[in-house]
Amino acid sequence: MYDFYGELLTEHQKQIYEEVVLNDYSFTEVAEEQGISRQGVHDLIKRCNKILEEYEEKLKLVEKFIGTKELVGEIDRLLAEYRTDRDEGKLLEVERITEEILQKL
Amino acid sequence: MYDFYGELLTEHQKQIYEEVVLNDYSFTEVAEEQGISRQGVHDLIKRCNKILEEYEEKLKLVEKFIGTKELVGEIDRLLAEYRTDRDEGKLLEVERITEEILQKL
Repeated sequence: MYDFYGELLTEHQKQIYEEVVLNDYSFTEVAEEQGISRQGVHDLIKRCNKILEEYEEKLKLVEKFIGTKELVGEIDRLLAEYRTDRDEGKLLEVERITEEILQKL
Repeated sequence: MYDFYGELLTEHQKQIYEEVVLNDYSFTEVAEEQGISRQGVHDLIKRCNKILEEYEEKLKLVEKFIGTKELVGEIDRLLAEYRTDRDEGKLLEVERITEEILQKL
């Protein structure tokens, strides 16, 4: 979710969130580096997660992207199969899926 | 952009924005109905557009979706061609495009 909505956090929130969640520093390390309490880091991460979840609740964009990704993966799989078995039904299925994606986006 | 970020507007903003932009009522009609000035409606629409643009500037999700949509359209086109000319190169091109989409999403 951070990939989608991270830019909506403040610079300060982003910096700390990235250190803890993406770069895997401990609360204690980040707290020392930022000159805030360990609890402060903990609260900030919790608040960031809440903000990101609230955006997703409203916009559902992560959900939408995951759905599209799965369908594109399905196209990939069907085409690989087609190249082996030459089952024309699989091409039709791929076309159906592309239509589905285009209607969703 | 309203499709993506509309849920981040307030109920009041959404209502007026939809009447003017989606349902094509005039500023005057909406102003009368809402009991506000024509200028008030005008300002609200302008502010909504600015909010939506600011979200897009930060998140670039509309841009991302349009890019994906174009690529899926390209898959559709290539497969239709393949079904006519049986040019295997087109299947490979479709596979390349599905990889590209999966990496982007």
